[in-house]
Amino acid sequence: RKTYKIAVLAGDGIGPEVTDESVKILKVIGEAFQYNFQFDYGVMGAEAIYETGNPLPDKTLELCRNSDAVLFGAIGDPAFDNNPDAKVRPEQGLLKLRKELGLFANIRPIKTYASLIKKSPLKREIVEGTDIQIYRELISGIYFGEKFTEENGEYAYDLCKYSREEIVGIAHLAFQDAQKRRKKLTLIDKANVLDTSRLWRKIVKEIAPQYPDVELDFMFVDNAAMQMILNPKQFDVILTENMFGDIISDEASVIGGSIGLLPSASIGEDSGLFEPIHGSYPQAKGKGIANPIASILSAAMLLDYLELTQAADKLRKSVEHAIESKYVTIDLNAEQHYSTSEVGDFIADYI
Amino acid sequence: RKTYKIAVLAGDGIGPEVTDESVKILKVIGEAFQYNFQFDYGVMGAEAIYETGNPLPDKTLELCRNSDAVLFGAIGDPAFDNNPDAKVRPEQGLLKLRKELGLFANIRPIKTYASLIKKSPLKREIVEGTDIQIYRELISGIYFGEKFTEENGEYAYDLCKYSREEIVGIAHLAFQDAQKRRKKLTLIDKANVLDTSRLWRKIVKEIAPQYPDVELDFMFVDNAAMQMILNPKQFDVILTENMFGDIISDEASVIGGSIGLLPSASIGEDSGLFEPIHGSYPQAKGKGIANPIASILSAAMLLDYLELTQAADKLRKSVEHAIESKYVTIDLNAEQHYSTSEVGDFIADYI
Ligand SMILES: CC(C)[C@H](C(=O)O)[C@@H](O)C(=O)O
Ligand SMILES: CC(C)[C@H](C(=O)O)[C@@H](O)C(=O)O
Repeated sequence: RKTYKIAVLAGDGIGPEVTDESVKILKVIGEAFQYNFQFDYGVMGAEAIYETGNPLPDKTLELCRNSDAVLFGAIGDPAFDNNPDAKVRPEQGLLKLRKELGLFANIRPIKTYASLIKKSPLKREIVEGTDIQIYRELISGIYFGEKFTEENGEYAYDLCKYSREEIVGIAHLAFQDAQKRRKKLTLIDKANVLDTSRLWRKIVKEIAPQYPDVELDFMFVDNAAMQMILNPKQFDVILTENMFGDIISDEASVIGGSIGLLPSASIGEDSGLFEPIHGSYPQAKGKGIANPIASILSAAMLLDYLELTQAADKLRKSVEHAIESKYVTIDLNAEQHYSTSEVGDFIADYI
Repeated sequence: RKTYKIAVLAGDGIGPEVTDESVKILKVIGEAFQYNFQFDYGVMGAEAIYETGNPLPDKTLELCRNSDAVLFGAIGDPAFDNNPDAKVRPEQGLLKLRKELGLFANIRPIKTYASLIKKSPLKREIVEGTDIQIYRELISGIYFGEKFTEENGEYAYDLCKYSREEIVGIAHLAFQDAQKRRKKLTLIDKANVLDTSRLWRKIVKEIAPQYPDVELDFMFVDNAAMQMILNPKQFDVILTENMFGDIISDEASVIGGSIGLLPSASIGEDSGLFEPIHGSYPQAKGKGIANPIASILSAAMLLDYLELTQAADKLRKSVEHAIESKYVTIDLNAEQHYSTSEVGDFIADYI
């Protein structure tokens, strides 16, 4: 039996407590389905800066390189956010890890759960039935282009650069996913202003004939930010560049009523990293109130990535069961709620 | 009596029909308040490309330079949107006009009207009472930095650049407005990733002590895109760079229930341009169904800019009266509605 090596980087804030639940559940899955999982822990983020001075120690990077997949918690610490002059920052660890592992595609599913729609800031008729898959390019664009600040702070710049190769890779993934879904792909860009956006449009148009069953359309990012709220059901698969994807996917995360439910996968040629999209939520750290479901659903995406599809489906069903049974944390039900680990146990028991 | 010279650029799509209503109303205001307005028309956008090959003919630019204010309609034409290879595009005219006139601050008020809240995709309790003023930097950043596309389409780039001077100007305007309002200023940036954002933060922090009564806070743009939907009432004045402002202000435009109500002002050292934030809406062109209120409220901002405050207030009251009387276009009331010019007449009559 193959042993699947999973690197666990719990990170900052509520990262460790939600990741603990995912590991607990993956262990139960391993027993139930007869898979060998090996969990190896590494430090990362603010935690790693405090310990080693480095947000991504070499040891952690090596661990990730030698693993089949990375389960990641969260990153960020108010001590750094409130100090924009800090030279070393937790986020650098995550950005470097994405780049070093070549995780070019960040995939975020946006779905609604019937019993939670009432928690959405949007009206039921607007959001009910929303089912979007966002593909965000993750290792290029303005995040990774040349940066410069003049020493007296007279000016600064950031370069947004894209190559054909960088666009082609993720575009194929998005088209392929659209083929398995409702066969619609929307490229979000700002092609009326940016050269990089015009390049995205050009290349995506060139690729489109290889997927004749997929309907391709284009939307300017400002309009997309409106359409996401006016009519999210119009979207199936969304493809976009790094910065626009950061903004649009966080915006979309409000649709279902709780960001505490939303997982993500970051995929490369031979690596995958799986993390909840909520951040480190430092106010909740250590209180046992954090919702573990986003991390648990990220573990389900990890199982998909390892092609353990049956287990992934079972895990998703168990999560749905917990939500329908109202066995949830305080963010989803203020009246009757359970702790982070109680919710984890409930899901584990159902498997 | 001083003559106020107003350049009128009606532009594309529904631009001409909504601008007509504003001019009609400004004429009534001129009579009622004894102001001399002189209206001079110029072409711009797709209309200007068809006529002259140039989206911003020199004659139009000269006209704007020699006027006290510019009343602008809308820009954009599907013939160009569907052809990303077009070398000459309507939007270039607007971008060039902004740059040439030095319109560094784009100001967008986001408000709700009690009788229209039911039209919002968001829940009443989320949006009721929202009152935000967005200051978007308009003539720098990635819009105007160096651009390049390699001739075979192998790569492309866009440079986002900001200087101290560019940030200082708009920051003071935003702080001053906050002082007149609820005394809160939120800078939206991505300072955990971008050098330009860190420069914005640094400079805005330096300026803050000059406005000790204003509470300053910072928000990452991805989080802001969530917060705008989760809790828009937390915002008073928002300050942000060009690209983020484009996205966040369009997103915010959904709050009140109709983008057909939202005006904007673009202000420079000695120029001001006033335009509805809805675009050219080509599907509605010539049908007499376009909502003229966004343009009319832009005319009110124009009056404010000319320091004709009494007239501006009167005009805003007349618009509120029309909305409360349900004397509105089809976008606001499908059951009983009036045409573009009927709504304009109703507002003019009330003045
Ligand atoms: C922490 C930050 C650098 C990161 C990003 O902007 O990519 C986060 O917002 C995300 O979306 O994963
Ligand atoms: C038409 C386009 C270039 C413009 C912009 O992006 O600035 C528009 O979206 C706006 O916000 O005024």
